[in-house]
Amino acid sequence: MGRFADRLCAAIAERDAPCVVGIDPVLEYIPDEFVRACDLARDGDVEERARLIEAYCSMTLEAVHDLVPAIKPQIAYFELFGSYGMRALESCIETARALGLIVLLDGKRGDIGSTSRAYAEAYLAKRPARPFEVDALTLSPYLGSDSLEPFVDVALENDKGLFVCVRTSNPGADVVQQVATQAGPALFELVADLVSGFNDRAIGASGFGSVGAVVGATQPAAAHKLRAQLPRTLFLVPGFGAQGGSLETVRACFDARGRGALVNSARAVMYPERFGSGTKHPSSKDGIRAAARDFVGAIRSLVAQK
Amino acid sequence: MGRFADRLCAAIAERDAPCVVGIDPVLEYIPDEFVRACDLARDGDVEERARLIEAYCSMTLEAVHDLVPAIKPQIAYFELFGSYGMRALESCIETARALGLIVLLDGKRGDIGSTSRAYAEAYLAKRPARPFEVDALTLSPYLGSDSLEPFVDVALENDKGLFVCVRTSNPGADVVQQVATQAGPALFELVADLVSGFNDRAIGASGFGSVGAVVGATQPAAAHKLRAQLPRTLFLVPGFGAQGGSLETVRACFDARGRGALVNSARAVMYPERFGSGTKHPSSKDGIRAAARDFVGAIRSLVAQK
Repeated sequence: MGRFADRLCAAIAERDAPCVVGIDPVLEYIPDEFVRACDLARDGDVEERARLIEAYCSMTLEAVHDLVPAIKPQIAYFELFGSYGMRALESCIETARALGLIVLLDGKRGDIGSTSRAYAEAYLAKRPARPFEVDALTLSPYLGSDSLEPFVDVALENDKGLFVCVRTSNPGADVVQQVATQAGPALFELVADLVSGFNDRAIGASGFGSVGAVVGATQPAAAHKLRAQLPRTLFLVPGFGAQGGSLETVRACFDARGRGALVNSARAVMYPERFGSGTKHPSSKDGIRAAARDFVGAIRSLVAQK
Repeated sequence: MGRFADRLCAAIAERDAPCVVGIDPVLEYIPDEFVRACDLARDGDVEERARLIEAYCSMTLEAVHDLVPAIKPQIAYFELFGSYGMRALESCIETARALGLIVLLDGKRGDIGSTSRAYAEAYLAKRPARPFEVDALTLSPYLGSDSLEPFVDVALENDKGLFVCVRTSNPGADVVQQVATQAGPALFELVADLVSGFNDRAIGASGFGSVGAVVGATQPAAAHKLRAQLPRTLFLVPGFGAQGGSLETVRACFDARGRGALVNSARAVMYPERFGSGTKHPSSKDGIRAAARDFVGAIRSLVAQK
């Protein structure tokens, strides 16, 4: 099955698309026509609501599966519906696997060692014992090195990947990540070193390792700095589109050969009628497919300029 | 129903126990006799395993419910069993409510604003639409101020509480939390100021606010410093017992009147035969009850020395 980084790089090359579609199932954004066609109610009980987001996720995956290598479900939107929502997440993961999509689960987990080990097993160990098995998981590093280590161990045992939050896209992140340390660098640069150290244990034939970094598309200075600091680290790049990330910053996340980054777009693809930019595609299977094509085309031409 | 901090302080006073029992359901630690009595198999399918942890959690809650004011389920151990595990979590929350226990869910969530809002709604908004509704949730602050703010908003709207990781109990936390900043203080002190600012919006009649801090029992210097820095902030104190936290450090987390902290013990109570210190109680309902009594007695006499 090969190392995660190599599988991901091969899938990116195969589709010529360093792109991931974010799966943020938000009930209010699902169009009325879709709700009616499912014969479900937006204001039904929690089980019915979870069935509705499951159906919309499934349609989204079918619409994009041959255009992008990977999807990134945001687990918070599934947790909203309790265990029914988590069943919808399992279904989303199963559908993605059947369609040949790599699943990067956005959970930003991280805890003391023994608990991190439990999270790591939950998401990176094998089914059927672990129903939430995905290909990679995002992590939050506030609890430090021994909170990340069990994830790295379990990921490497199972050929899985990780993306650790280093410099995120939200404006309020500055008060922690941008703090100047006595040693000189900003805090996020120390975290980057930590991530890079783990990644060195996991370099594959692609030249990249399986312990990646989350680097927001809204952070131009950090993107330039981190690309130079971490040449063998894959960047997961959120914040493009709705959050105001720039094409220039996204470009800075790729290396000179146009590799090393995976750009995320969620709402502009999943709900193009509401959040799309440029051509207003409908929020239907065909519209989502068209929006995904626009997204992939934009990133492709941006990388071609490297 | 009153503010979270006031409800928690009243429940602590009523039971004379500033103590919380951590619910870490680990399959391997459940004794054979219990497994046999349930007529379930430890190596059954994932649904059967989830039923087993559900049953053991339920027995633990029944054993301790009149001795402590609150429980702290660690969500990672439920996520291990997929949606079946999450159904077990719902059952654990329901049992705790029925027994009059306050539920502090240990999830260490935190993300960009819109996603934090979804997590906050998932755990702090009302049932039946939100099946995971609990009384308080732990947060991880690496994503900064706007990752915490939606939790504060939703918590205050719903009279719920939060505990933000400030200085955690694990040894590897130093590389992030203890980093010296150019301004002088360690990073965790800046995070403490952030938490304190939010907490000021939520001070109740008890004198404490509903936005608390996680302060590990293994961090004596931080405990002294933070107790002085945050006089109106409730501390959730893990790391006592199994992780090597000291009684002296736990004492430092209480204010001069013996208030302001809630000490957690998980494994020593839940699996006393395996992890208990002192008297070796069996891992049965009576043994768990005896271990909880020992725990509460130790903390009570420690507070009496203030």
